[in-house]
Amino acid sequence: MKVKVSRKEHFNAAHRLFNAAWTDEENERVFGKCSNPNYHGHNYELIVSLTGETDPATGYVYDMKKLSDLIKENILKQFDHKNLNLDTQYFKALNPTAENIAMVIWRILRQRIDEKYELNVRLYETERNFVEYPVH
Amino acid sequence: MKVKVSRKEHFNAAHRLFNAAWTDEENERVFGKCSNPNYHGHNYELIVSLTGETDPATGYVYDMKKLSDLIKENILKQFDHKNLNLDTQYFKALNPTAENIAMVIWRILRQRIDEKYELNVRLYETERNFVEYPVH
Amino acid sequence: MKVKVSRKEHFNAAHRLFNAAWTDEENERVFGKCSNPNYHGHNYELIVSLTGETDPATGYVYDMKKLSDLIKENILKQFDHKNLNLDTQYFKALNPTAENIAMVIWRILRQRIDEKYELNVRLYETERNFVEYPVH
Amino acid sequence: MKVKVSRKEHFNAAHRLFNAAWTDEENERVFGKCSNPNYHGHNYELIVSLTGETDPATGYVYDMKKLSDLIKENILKQFDHKNLNLDTQYFKALNPTAENIAMVIWRILRQRIDEKYELNVRLYETERNFVEYPVH
Amino acid sequence: MKVKVSRKEHFNAAHRLFNAAWTDEENERVFGKCSNPNYHGHNYELIVSLTGETDPATGYVYDMKKLSDLIKENILKQFDHKNLNLDTQYFKALNPTAENIAMVIWRILRQRIDEKYELNVRLYETERNFVEYPVH
Amino acid sequence: MKVKVSRKEHFNAAHRLFNAAWTDEENERVFGKCSNPNYHGHNYELIVSLTGETDPATGYVYDMKKLSDLIKENILKQFDHKNLNLDTQYFKALNPTAENIAMVIWRILRQRIDEKYELNVRLYETERNFVEYPVH
Repeated sequence: MKVKVSRKEHFNAAHRLFNAAWTDEENERVFGKCSNPNYHGHNYELIVSLTGETDPATGYVYDMKKLSDLIKENILKQFDHKNLNLDTQYFKALNPTAENIAMVIWRILRQRIDEKYELNVRLYETERNFVEYPVH
Repeated sequence: MKVKVSRKEHFNAAHRLFNAAWTDEENERVFGKCSNPNYHGHNYELIVSLTGETDPATGYVYDMKKLSDLIKENILKQFDHKNLNLDTQYFKALNPTAENIAMVIWRILRQRIDEKYELNVRLYETERNFVEYPVH
Repeated sequence: MKVKVSRKEHFNAAHRLFNAAWTDEENERVFGKCSNPNYHGHNYELIVSLTGETDPATGYVYDMKKLSDLIKENILKQFDHKNLNLDTQYFKALNPTAENIAMVIWRILRQRIDEKYELNVRLYETERNFVEYPVH
Repeated sequence: MKVKVSRKEHFNAAHRLFNAAWTDEENERVFGKCSNPNYHGHNYELIVSLTGETDPATGYVYDMKKLSDLIKENILKQFDHKNLNLDTQYFKALNPTAENIAMVIWRILRQRIDEKYELNVRLYETERNFVEYPVH
Repeated sequence: MKVKVSRKEHFNAAHRLFNAAWTDEENERVFGKCSNPNYHGHNYELIVSLTGETDPATGYVYDMKKLSDLIKENILKQFDHKNLNLDTQYFKALNPTAENIAMVIWRILRQRIDEKYELNVRLYETERNFVEYPVH
Repeated sequence: MKVKVSRKEHFNAAHRLFNAAWTDEENERVFGKCSNPNYHGHNYELIVSLTGETDPATGYVYDMKKLSDLIKENILKQFDHKNLNLDTQYFKALNPTAENIAMVIWRILRQRIDEKYELNVRLYETERNFVEYPVH
């Protein structure tokens, strides 16, 4: 039986939901006020979880300080106080929905965390809307 | 790999735990102050989750605005500012424990959400007592 | 300069907003769904604050354990898991709005706490609606 | 002695801290990442408080449903899912700091609420940064 | 399909991360400020979850009052307002990381709860660091 | 009319309530489990507030980044992951109640913040017990 350890971080960003293949009317109809051309923004709360065995010498699954530093270096540095559509490379063609942001964060972190750990991401766009990835 | 999306809503309701097949003494003994004959009440927090694939055109698993409207129309309209025992059809014979309320909400929503989505309900009766349904 | 110390407690109760001098239509028009004849309910969060000098021997303004016991004995025992309109003596003729509940709680506690302490009550009916009494 | 009643609402907006009289370097030096040219954003939590006497007929200082509608009509309609710098008239020349946003909200609401009520605004930019206006 | 019911409790304790087989320098290097020789402390939030079938007579999976009493009697009595390293038998040789504390709590409760219920423990060391045990 | 700006920080510390002039029995009788000889601990939440005029050039009362740095440098560096009784100079003779900790923090910060700002400190020992200093 394994233990799941989680670290919560946050970032503040602007974004706009938008599909470039659609007319402005279609974007407005599907995404409503979330498609406001001048952007809006959120305080995103990000929970990153690792599941694995505890190390008998430390009693840790993973050092939470190292996980926090990893998230800060690889995610917050790119996303915090940014415009997700304009200031990052990830959402030029991909719509920055909470679902897509969570999948992008998972892919970035997956390359930097040993495969022996299962990796899960939960992202709160607001207190009332949140997503989890992956789910089996 | 799929994404799980969640929407939080809330309703305020009165209820009483009660088994009509039992004497008042048995109800008092089993349910304690939760069986107060004149009812008591809660601010219920309801989290409805859908698990599925993201739509490549929208980046959504499900439009959270539509999920919110679906919950308001089918759950909150019946439950918010009501007496669950007296004002709803569901708890005439069924005891309105958090477990049973969550299962009722799940059955109502299950009929209105495409079977391709897995549906999960979490219900907080208080900050300290909550239930999840279904769990495999 | 003084210190203000605060203790948070909670109780779950049913209530109905209602003015017996009015017709049902007037009650419905003024209080809306809060006037539902079969009651609804809330998880009330109560914060009781005392302002005074610290005792040099203890470093306390007031022992928080004693304040918690005082609230439990004098408020929660009467209000928790009750119907405020039917099960308490206070709201037979007085409408149990958050404002009136807070004032009733203040009057009950004021008699049991030394006048050298300023006493303040904050009551959350929901996370989004709350009242404070008294305010100068 | 009066009662203070409060209503919490929220809006999601993009903004940028910026003084047009300064060079880009000065803006960067003073406002740091908050001056990102492509904006960033927040989930703003807004608490509006009114202090007054309770109406003996209703037990209300002010109907919270009316206060909520007033905030939605006059504040959220202009600010929610908007870019505060570009999409509102208030922050063309005024820097949209939490301090200035709170003062703008207070001025808008002050014109629509009877002078017999004292009006106070608290605005959370994040869970860790918040402002209150006015303070005597 | 089963229901998962959860109860949240809390305890306040001092602890120190420390491996007696290591030098002070190694402890300092691995555990940093968490290894402070004079201890530090936390408000631990503990969520205990049971998964099972609802009893048709009560509508309960498990009586939350009984679960709360069980946690208080078997966990809080030993851990609340204690030094985990010095005042409990469990962490004489075992490092009191959140992972190890959660596993110890699970083992204590597992002996006192019928095997027909699946038992899960979640422990928040801070709002930002938490663990879950077991995870399959 | 002025604006009050607030910054929330946190620290994790061990402490013990204890009056050296008293016998162990008296300490036990007055402070109960809070006097446990091996200490216990808390996640302290600290809110520091400054009240003043906004600077027309910045729209700030005070730069929250600077206030955060000031708190980290002068308070957290001394208090976070420490034993308040043993590791700090302040509570050798002074009992580390929430009241006294808040007053010590206020005195440290008062020397480092311009007198034109009113300074207030709120300290949460737990979610249910908190203090504010000064109060007029």
